[in-house]
Amino acid sequence: MDPAPAGTVAGEGITHEELRLAARNHALPLEALRHPITPAGLHYLLIHFDIPDVDPGSFRLEIGGAVARPMSLSLDDLRSRERVTEPITFECAGNGRALLDPRPISQPWLTEAVGTAQWAGTHLGPLLDEAEPSRDAIEVQLTALDRGVEGGVPQAYERSLPIAEAGAALLADEMNGGPLPPQHGFPLRLVVPGWYGMTNVKWLTRITVLEEPFTGYQNAVGYRMYAPDGTPGEPITRMLPRSLMVPPGVPEFMTRERQMEPGPVTLTGRAWSGRGPIERVEVTTDGGDTFADATLDPPLGPHAWRGWRLAWDAPPGEHELASRATDAAGNAQPLDPAWNLKGYSNNAVERIRVVVAGA
Amino acid sequence: MDPAPAGTVAGEGITHEELRLAARNHALPLEALRHPITPAGLHYLLIHFDIPDVDPGSFRLEIGGAVARPMSLSLDDLRSRERVTEPITFECAGNGRALLDPRPISQPWLTEAVGTAQWAGTHLGPLLDEAEPSRDAIEVQLTALDRGVEGGVPQAYERSLPIAEAGAALLADEMNGGPLPPQHGFPLRLVVPGWYGMTNVKWLTRITVLEEPFTGYQNAVGYRMYAPDGTPGEPITRMLPRSLMVPPGVPEFMTRERQMEPGPVTLTGRAWSGRGPIERVEVTTDGGDTFADATLDPPLGPHAWRGWRLAWDAPPGEHELASRATDAAGNAQPLDPAWNLKGYSNNAVERIRVVVAGA
Repeated sequence: MDPAPAGTVAGEGITHEELRLAARNHALPLEALRHPITPAGLHYLLIHFDIPDVDPGSFRLEIGGAVARPMSLSLDDLRSRERVTEPITFECAGNGRALLDPRPISQPWLTEAVGTAQWAGTHLGPLLDEAEPSRDAIEVQLTALDRGVEGGVPQAYERSLPIAEAGAALLADEMNGGPLPPQHGFPLRLVVPGWYGMTNVKWLTRITVLEEPFTGYQNAVGYRMYAPDGTPGEPITRMLPRSLMVPPGVPEFMTRERQMEPGPVTLTGRAWSGRGPIERVEVTTDGGDTFADATLDPPLGPHAWRGWRLAWDAPPGEHELASRATDAAGNAQPLDPAWNLKGYSNNAVERIRVVVAGA
Repeated sequence: MDPAPAGTVAGEGITHEELRLAARNHALPLEALRHPITPAGLHYLLIHFDIPDVDPGSFRLEIGGAVARPMSLSLDDLRSRERVTEPITFECAGNGRALLDPRPISQPWLTEAVGTAQWAGTHLGPLLDEAEPSRDAIEVQLTALDRGVEGGVPQAYERSLPIAEAGAALLADEMNGGPLPPQHGFPLRLVVPGWYGMTNVKWLTRITVLEEPFTGYQNAVGYRMYAPDGTPGEPITRMLPRSLMVPPGVPEFMTRERQMEPGPVTLTGRAWSGRGPIERVEVTTDGGDTFADATLDPPLGPHAWRGWRLAWDAPPGEHELASRATDAAGNAQPLDPAWNLKGYSNNAVERIRVVVAGA
């Protein structure tokens, strides 16, 4: 076997450093897919550095850079603006990373780094309009209050977004009807419908309008689709389609393998894409040899996952279940992962092994 | 090196199965020690099987077994009883497991499987008194609604508690002023002050008074202090003392190593024990060669962790920090782990590596 590229490891053993990240950054337990709106403590979480301790009384959101009218806004200023509440689904760009081989060394996600919350706040678009960006503005640089070191670079977490996408972004100060929990960005975060989570900057404190592309670490080095030789390619943007299933039956504690009784059961789950509405979810109960179309639930909203269900008469024996989503733009989940150096956008189907008793 | 005992693995690589558990069951991020009461989504979580979907309208708590007056209680019945709210700290009995070598294969906790919430509900003692346990009653068997398979045994999660300890146990239906989140036992869980988390049965639905010791899986096989030859020894009960520190400075993303500027800083953290009040916390900044006594904050309550602080003038260079708690019963944290087959009660000090800039 060829040696694994730098920054990746071949084979199974997760390192102590990966485990340390996994202990902090948790996924959605799959049975929690039963909730159309994810309870706050079950929504996936990726905390880049440390959760900062922010005083809401002195907090300001600054809007500056290439604008005619820089702004400095308190939380009360933001709350006095037009309010929007919307269910929005997003997942981590690294979701699925730990299933790649060789495995890119970073937060070792399996498949469940996702969640859907009722995010409430005000749209960034009208605020940006009032600030009057220059004609040459192309991006907004988003600066957070969490700080650390990555790739040898001391930094606040910073990421940019094309200005054409910024209008639809939500400056959110509420999650599921309450204030943002500390770990979800208290007192203010961005939520950009359809994008992977790296753009949904938590503890957001400054928006800088740029006339040149942002070249900070998280845009120039992090969150790009790398070639195996280490060349950074296109930046990561919108979510590819993915679907997940509530695992039927009950788990074995250690293996999480599912055990169930034979007979009729309704398989359920949720599917989403940042590139178009979900148009189809297919389900296999024979490891991918055959697929049946699931029924789609009514939409929760244009930017939220879509429920699906399919009746299955479970026969005794061992089965491998999987679901595959297709969006309106024609993107479909692959059956096997497409490898890349940093482990982004792995939207391959999840396979669930089920042992049905009897016979 | 001798081969690792069955059920353990020598060396670093965490298995895929351990990672699957780590993705579900999250720890307290250490910086969240700044909160005296842990926000609900940051409290550690060990979900044995799946989070069950419980209808609060039809939910009943049954009290039966060796009692004169069996009871069946709705949530309204429970809420009409005397209410108690108390900050209670508890941690997982397996906290520290992944730092043992060879490593017992189970949920791979590092050191942060702990939290403190304001738990509210009614004490079990008066309810048990009304049920009139027989004179020979010695234990209460606690049955939950989550089901699965462990050690080849299909089971609901069940665990027992000596009846002498049951009076102080809280039947909690609120956490931090709100209803229990699904993952913390909605609609009802037990919280036993001073005990490791395995006794704080979530989704509690039945209490059975026993005249013989409970011999179900979680008492007879799980949660005992095993000998290396596989002999099950004493059951796990109350928490040994432990302390943790808010890591100073900022983290490197992947290694979580801390980087900071030289000069004065206040080191802070929290300490707890289930065997007596915390009497002393000592802190080392030189890897254990010397210790200084930290100042203890005022107590939050008799069953909650205690804050501590110590001024440190950080000199340039690399340092290893650790804190060591001692309780009123004379138990102190060891500097190195005491190994046991299932990885319980490892309360060895946590070591934090810090790089101070300069010089």
